[in-house]
Amino acid sequence: MSILPDKSKDWQIQPLNRKGLHLRYSRYFIPTLKEIPAEAEVISHQLMLRAGMIRKLAAGVYSILPLGVRVVRKVEAIIRKEMDKSGAMEVILPSIQPAELWKEAGRWNFYGKELLRISDRNDREFCYAPTAEEAVTDLVRGEVRSYKDLPINLYQIQTKFRDEIRPRFGVMRAREFSMKDAYSFDTDQDGIDHTYIQMKQTYKSIFKQCGLKFKVVEADTGQIGGSSSHEFMVLAESGEDTIAYCDECNFASNIEKVSLDNCEFAYDGNHLPMQEIDTPQLKTIGEVSEFLGVSPQKFFKTLVYKTDDENNKAVVAVCRGDHSINPVKLANAIGVNEVTLANEELIESVTGAPVGFVGPIGLKKVSVYGDYSIKPILNGITGANKKDKHMKNVNSNRDMTHVVWKDIRNPVDGDSCPAIGVGKLSLAKGIEVGHIFKLGAKYSKSMGATFLDKNGKEKPMLMGCYGIGVARTIASAIEQSHDEKGIVWPVSIAPFKVIVILLQPKEELVVTTAEMIYADLIKAGHDPILDDRDQRPGVKFNEADLIGFPVQVIVGKKSVANKKAEIKVRKTGKIQDVPLETITDTIISTLDGLG
Amino acid sequence: MSILPDKSKDWQIQPLNRKGLHLRYSRYFIPTLKEIPAEAEVISHQLMLRAGMIRKLAAGVYSILPLGVRVVRKVEAIIRKEMDKSGAMEVILPSIQPAELWKEAGRWNFYGKELLRISDRNDREFCYAPTAEEAVTDLVRGEVRSYKDLPINLYQIQTKFRDEIRPRFGVMRAREFSMKDAYSFDTDQDGIDHTYIQMKQTYKSIFKQCGLKFKVVEADTGQIGGSSSHEFMVLAESGEDTIAYCDECNFASNIEKVSLDNCEFAYDGNHLPMQEIDTPQLKTIGEVSEFLGVSPQKFFKTLVYKTDDENNKAVVAVCRGDHSINPVKLANAIGVNEVTLANEELIESVTGAPVGFVGPIGLKKVSVYGDYSIKPILNGITGANKKDKHMKNVNSNRDMTHVVWKDIRNPVDGDSCPAIGVGKLSLAKGIEVGHIFKLGAKYSKSMGATFLDKNGKEKPMLMGCYGIGVARTIASAIEQSHDEKGIVWPVSIAPFKVIVILLQPKEELVVTTAEMIYADLIKAGHDPILDDRDQRPGVKFNEADLIGFPVQVIVGKKSVANKKAEIKVRKTGKIQDVPLETITDTIISTLDGLG
Repeated sequence: MSILPDKSKDWQIQPLNRKGLHLRYSRYFIPTLKEIPAEAEVISHQLMLRAGMIRKLAAGVYSILPLGVRVVRKVEAIIRKEMDKSGAMEVILPSIQPAELWKEAGRWNFYGKELLRISDRNDREFCYAPTAEEAVTDLVRGEVRSYKDLPINLYQIQTKFRDEIRPRFGVMRAREFSMKDAYSFDTDQDGIDHTYIQMKQTYKSIFKQCGLKFKVVEADTGQIGGSSSHEFMVLAESGEDTIAYCDECNFASNIEKVSLDNCEFAYDGNHLPMQEIDTPQLKTIGEVSEFLGVSPQKFFKTLVYKTDDENNKAVVAVCRGDHSINPVKLANAIGVNEVTLANEELIESVTGAPVGFVGPIGLKKVSVYGDYSIKPILNGITGANKKDKHMKNVNSNRDMTHVVWKDIRNPVDGDSCPAIGVGKLSLAKGIEVGHIFKLGAKYSKSMGATFLDKNGKEKPMLMGCYGIGVARTIASAIEQSHDEKGIVWPVSIAPFKVIVILLQPKEELVVTTAEMIYADLIKAGHDPILDDRDQRPGVKFNEADLIGFPVQVIVGKKSVANKKAEIKVRKTGKIQDVPLETITDTIISTLDGLG
Repeated sequence: MSILPDKSKDWQIQPLNRKGLHLRYSRYFIPTLKEIPAEAEVISHQLMLRAGMIRKLAAGVYSILPLGVRVVRKVEAIIRKEMDKSGAMEVILPSIQPAELWKEAGRWNFYGKELLRISDRNDREFCYAPTAEEAVTDLVRGEVRSYKDLPINLYQIQTKFRDEIRPRFGVMRAREFSMKDAYSFDTDQDGIDHTYIQMKQTYKSIFKQCGLKFKVVEADTGQIGGSSSHEFMVLAESGEDTIAYCDECNFASNIEKVSLDNCEFAYDGNHLPMQEIDTPQLKTIGEVSEFLGVSPQKFFKTLVYKTDDENNKAVVAVCRGDHSINPVKLANAIGVNEVTLANEELIESVTGAPVGFVGPIGLKKVSVYGDYSIKPILNGITGANKKDKHMKNVNSNRDMTHVVWKDIRNPVDGDSCPAIGVGKLSLAKGIEVGHIFKLGAKYSKSMGATFLDKNGKEKPMLMGCYGIGVARTIASAIEQSHDEKGIVWPVSIAPFKVIVILLQPKEELVVTTAEMIYADLIKAGHDPILDDRDQRPGVKFNEADLIGFPVQVIVGKKSVANKKAEIKVRKTGKIQDVPLETITDTIISTLDGLG
């Protein structure tokens, strides 16, 4: 405890920490907000605004303030460390990219309005890159000739732009955002398989070090294409995605990728004659179920969808009354890109009945897809395709011979795990923070990125691509870990790990003590911030909890008189009275204990 | 020397250095070029392409490859360290900014075609920010209310775009480029003066740590505006700018900011009668001077300029035959933003004579500006404003009473220093790598960035802005320090400080020794790269010199047999034979010696 307190008002000459940072709250730009901003729907957006980490400049376009930048740099450092360790090499690819490249790969027209298109002063077309497959493939095809130059894996942490139709949730779905994107080039399938596994491990390691609880799930390859894909999902109530996982084995998957078992028809039961019944104004399964006193599990829930094929053909999908259709599974079953729920007009034209009375029986002019799970329903109920009428005693093997049987529903809690088959599935909400793809030869073929193999034969390189949303990782950490007072940071990515709160800035002994603790922590290689503001204690405590410094050291008149100070752990709220002579050690061991 | 050599071919499991980097040349992406690329005019552009640091994606748009990124990160780290030390705080402002902001500050129309304008999917106007005064002023005006919140200084290292009419010289004048830009906000003149001086010191410290020889020069505030401005000029033959400096005092300045003395007319000489002479087809001062046997110093060189005022008024400027007009000084003298040389048509319409025969005599309908230095010319020569005619015996006090006298010429070697006045000026070529401005209230007034002072009175904040071109700093280091073999890096920003060159990758003892030196350097906290490629020694030596690793450790069969290896210093070319037992220490002390 050798550094004397600095009572000067001139912040220029105050002691700096080991990184030369100037970390007094009184001179730091942290514009906190007391009120919950009306613009913010989700908690991470609210808390990032309130903690003074971000501010909106335009729809989906945010400035990141000093406290936010500190978190960004910590996440970036973890990403760089792990990517470098994996053998990947950092590059910086331009954000403004020529249209010709995107046309070459076939994505200029494909990408739609999400691609921000730009004309320069000479009316040449460019775009603000939302991803960099084209640019990196162009770079590598120009330099790599031989199998000897492969494999290589190039990554960058660079600003991207996606002109989202509905930017929302703050930095979670912003238009301008920073993404770590990596692109690997291998000579053969073994190589890309190996690189892919290595990237999966690297990503696990990154998110683990960011202090996140996450699942790695199998994912649809979607518009990027390729043969295999995994998403890294941070588990949080507010997640936009639903995932299914098994607690018995390692299985975890996006719900659209969960294969559910085929079922047997109810051959053995007593098939009663089908019968039309009156259900006046009873449109929902809930209403009819209550009216008839029959469980929703005995209902054939029937929905009409519009496909995106050239004729916008309508299809009908049927699942159990207590289940729901998964549109991605349905689209894959039909062989189209996308299905959307039909409007009333289309429903009536397909079934002849108003919404609420639709059923699969008698629908001959339209394709009807039935989920496997309705096969065992014995003497079930469905809409009669007539206003105010339902059918009872419907049996699928007898009455639905026109139906195509497929796996098209969402999994539910308790479904059998499709992996080893012993466990049961649980569902959870998740936020996608990372996504990895085996692209194969998709881009290398269309753009001519080839190499000569050992036998001098020209072959396309096999690619993978790997993305992490930097700000989204931060937002998801907040979604996962906060309470009614504010953010509860994982220690590894907290903007500052420790705040030293000086309660009475006019009491010399308090100031001296706080300054000494602050200086000692700096000497020990930590990055504390000193709350030296002339503010009421209540304000200081509230803001410390709002911002979520993991360890808070409270230096006040009474404790100091007893040669003590308090250490508060943000996560538990526990406060400990600690003698000044051991306080630095206790702070450090408390931090270590938090991981 | 404990780490055993790794003879595995699997690069994934090779030892990593302390930063976890994977630094074997054989697996590193360094696509060097043997030939000088035709597209590259200047040496830094040639060498950055040849050393595999950059590649062009489009005109003025470059990808930075791994070796280049290493240098970028080192320069950025120096910038961050010094900016943080100064108390500035890092932010990240969006690259895509709404037009409304730029209109508010009055720059949307002013900026012209250099501003890359963009419409989003909803046809809202944006631009790719070339600088961020608007965005940062918008941020600060929204958060800062009181003098207590000031001063603050916010900086970012962020990608900018300027749609240059003629992008050239590689990253030196690119369209997309990374700039460190900082913006300070103070309450009063003392504050901004203090911050400005502090930033000047910070910049000196940054460029010094980057190993650059530079001058801090007074500069014109130009389009950014404000009251004071300095440029940081790296001295290099290839510089686009000329600066004047005094070796007796600290004076250094852009040439347009050098005030040159007023002169006395040649009152005392014998004023001969003015006389028209025949100078058939002799259009240049050189030709007429030779024809008449009279030194160019006796000539009144006369040029016609077009101004950018609303009528594009023409003006005439006169200087000594051996001097040149400085267009910025001339524009300032006239009170316009810009002057450009007139075309033939305008010259003839103003003077009645073709190019080559223009002089100030008799030009009554146009403003004529004479540089002070022509006042002492006795019986001088100038164009007669008639084809194939000049005038001799011209005396300015007698024959140029219609002339406005101003300081409008460029300085020359040997001019008196305007600072203390004892020294003489020298001229040098420089590359602008940094620029600082006192903006004052220019943006805060137009955008309403005000605060309440101690007396509760609303006042505009006083701003400064401060820029460093990151890639340009790197290119200028190369312009300043290279030889016919390649780059000679300042040690502090070299991509790797040491290369260990393993000459015979199939000789076990050579491999073992090189691996041990490599591992020892890593252990000692250095960042070596190991050239483990199966290549001829000549190729390895040439590439090491091309890339410019400051220290090269050469491990070959013969030396190793004698328990020695060679240390070569790139800068001097000197090679030293060093016993293996002390080699790591010698490498480290050699590095230290290089600074």
